[in-house]
Amino acid sequence: LREVRIVLVEPSHPGNIGGAARAMKTMGQSKLYLVNPRRYPDPQADWRAAGALDVLEQAVVVSTLEEAIGDCQWVVGTSTRMRRIPWPVANPRQIAAQLAEQEGDVAIIFGREASGLSNDELRACNYHLQIPASDDYPSLNLAMAVQVVCYELFQLDVEIDTGGWDRRSATVAEVDGMLAHLSEALTDTEFLDADNPGQVMTRVRRLFKRVNLDETEVQILRGIARHITRGPSL
Amino acid sequence: LREVRIVLVEPSHPGNIGGAARAMKTMGQSKLYLVNPRRYPDPQADWRAAGALDVLEQAVVVSTLEEAIGDCQWVVGTSTRMRRIPWPVANPRQIAAQLAEQEGDVAIIFGREASGLSNDELRACNYHLQIPASDDYPSLNLAMAVQVVCYELFQLDVEIDTGGWDRRSATVAEVDGMLAHLSEALTDTEFLDADNPGQVMTRVRRLFKRVNLDETEVQILRGIARHITRGPSL
Repeated sequence: LREVRIVLVEPSHPGNIGGAARAMKTMGQSKLYLVNPRRYPDPQADWRAAGALDVLEQAVVVSTLEEAIGDCQWVVGTSTRMRRIPWPVANPRQIAAQLAEQEGDVAIIFGREASGLSNDELRACNYHLQIPASDDYPSLNLAMAVQVVCYELFQLDVEIDTGGWDRRSATVAEVDGMLAHLSEALTDTEFLDADNPGQVMTRVRRLFKRVNLDETEVQILRGIARHITRGPSL
Repeated sequence: LREVRIVLVEPSHPGNIGGAARAMKTMGQSKLYLVNPRRYPDPQADWRAAGALDVLEQAVVVSTLEEAIGDCQWVVGTSTRMRRIPWPVANPRQIAAQLAEQEGDVAIIFGREASGLSNDELRACNYHLQIPASDDYPSLNLAMAVQVVCYELFQLDVEIDTGGWDRRSATVAEVDGMLAHLSEALTDTEFLDADNPGQVMTRVRRLFKRVNLDETEVQILRGIARHITRGPSL
């Protein structure tokens, strides 16, 4: 079974934290991360966790999303809304198949009950996940969404042989460092307007998030960033 | 979408009734039957139903299973245990496919939180349904089980609409043109050795080939290539 970090960002209701822990354990998952939970620990969480108290007690509580996913190599963010600049999106079954092929640590991030993930949080992700749901009322409870996703991870019993890659995947921190470097270089050259970078850097970010960069590619892109200076006039 | 009667037999916790109603509505289902619920109606049920209060309020409360399924033509009972006399059993995905082919009214029955369905109740069913789950802890919360089953019913009908991409894919010629431009710029700066470009350009090519660039991304990358000149020494 593919082990996946389940990250809940600022959950409001402790019952949902417990429910998510139980949902995970029924599907063989155990790595729960809580980013800045409003109420935790809490008896409601314990009660809803039922036989999954161990998952709840081992949960890693952090104060920023970065701490939860910085060392991951592939990050998926759940989303119900369509963005102005679309990100690559897949359903739970497709995500389960993708994750099976990823090396290293992977995470699936679930947003706040009322407002989901912010645009910035979604842009930190390689891929977005949407659970197909009724147009009338597509709003799954947080723990229910965790259940559906972990269910799909569990169903995937196929062995997929990708033949291996020749370099390890870059971590989130490595990719973000390269993007910061590139952004700086492009602003420096006035390719990006420092006051109004507009959509260009978001598009660059989306491109390099979705391709699952390896460590050597990150080094090459940093090398390119170093060679960007004010070029010949066009 | 195949309409299915969701029957909860003697649910103990009103929160689960509300959670089941919400789970159903998110997946386009609305026919909830409650057989002899211990506490219903109840504010906990309303709270957990959230935006699915209509499903909850239209729930049919009966005192025997027979009243809930007597007029159905195909009945599936959820079960976690293997019975002494094995019944035909299937997982949620298989059941969803089966139900799509059944005519008339169909029902899926969910048992009590603590003890499930009795042997007699299971023998009233045409088929049994088992949700694949971890051997360590296969005990899904009742409303979670409803969510997973209704999710599978919904998947059957849904062609995933990814919302489309906001730009057309780049052509091979456009990508190759950009790569040639980038290669030239990088050679010019001696980032690539013109006589021995080694693996670097191959890696750059692999990167931009596998990501399925769109036309705007190609333009941005050409813009970057234009801004590559001999940079500051390293």
